[in-house]
Amino acid sequence: MALKLEPGTRLVVATHNAGKARELAEILENRFPLTTAGELGLDEPDETETTFVGNALLKARAAAEASGLVALADDSGLSVAALEGAPGIYSARWAGPGRDFTLAMSKVELRLEEANAQDFAAWFTCALAVAWPGGPAVVVEGRVDGALTFPPRGARGFGYDPIFVPEGGAQTFGEMNPEAKDAMSHRARAFAKLKAALL
Amino acid sequence: MALKLEPGTRLVVATHNAGKARELAEILENRFPLTTAGELGLDEPDETETTFVGNALLKARAAAEASGLVALADDSGLSVAALEGAPGIYSARWAGPGRDFTLAMSKVELRLEEANAQDFAAWFTCALAVAWPGGPAVVVEGRVDGALTFPPRGARGFGYDPIFVPEGGAQTFGEMNPEAKDAMSHRARAFAKLKAALL
Repeated sequence: MALKLEPGTRLVVATHNAGKARELAEILENRFPLTTAGELGLDEPDETETTFVGNALLKARAAAEASGLVALADDSGLSVAALEGAPGIYSARWAGPGRDFTLAMSKVELRLEEANAQDFAAWFTCALAVAWPGGPAVVVEGRVDGALTFPPRGARGFGYDPIFVPEGGAQTFGEMNPEAKDAMSHRARAFAKLKAALL
Repeated sequence: MALKLEPGTRLVVATHNAGKARELAEILENRFPLTTAGELGLDEPDETETTFVGNALLKARAAAEASGLVALADDSGLSVAALEGAPGIYSARWAGPGRDFTLAMSKVELRLEEANAQDFAAWFTCALAVAWPGGPAVVVEGRVDGALTFPPRGARGFGYDPIFVPEGGAQTFGEMNPEAKDAMSHRARAFAKLKAALL
């Protein structure tokens, strides 16, 4: 088999989040009929790996084997240099079961204060994995570097966006309009790599 | 970029073991000039992931980024059903720093006795990863199912081969001639998948 995604291939997205699936369909220019792991009633595997690509791969692999379809999964998060890469793969977990990112951002601020950190360098990573059932998998990673700022600014985006200013910019991801953010985001960079590799 | 390995592409193998690199060169039919992470003086990363593919990917990615070359890495081991998949990714570590697999095999036997196990089902897994510097990576996994037998039999092969009888066979991997083992081994299956995907 060749590692190409032919237009029209039915893909299962390893998420239970319908909004995320719609976003992916758009990014993939609606060339692929998408279904989600949630719609198929698949279990979500535990994210036991220590890296973004490892967890994306684990989720894609599980969805591919359970569904018999080509599966796409993502894993992403914020890494802070002065916190040795934390929250990293635990980015979502820092927001708690209520997905409270105001809480998560204040945890980052508190940890930086405790560490008496002068260096606010940080980066977002997005890992994507595409797995063929019983076959190979392809993984890519996109990254955007920047610096943290407190207090949070801007109501756009999601997650840690309001405290992240990308390199060379003045606005946080939470303040930028979606087009400007999409032109440089870790997610956009990962999808550009995936498309270059597979389309 | 297309996910193809053009003949003549210089590959770095993420190992410090020259014997392993020679074996890989043969498996790849000497179509690629190989160098090793050891020859290039690269550090070996900690194998922090929880899966074979995760660790193969981590090693390939590290070697690719450090060398600027396309990198190939493997990770493999024995999983025992009655031991919940142990030794798994710790297969080499059970042999200790002296790489004493007689010791490792007796640990497996002891653990099965302690668990009063009646089920001796086991499987070998081989994960392979190819990573492009700054780019995507491809992972594949090969597996062979079988059952354990004690005491160990046969002086061929390596690692846990003398206690593993593949499904449908009577001899252990340690007793089989290399051609017979290569026709069904986890390693051969993983390389067949990798070649189908990339060559």
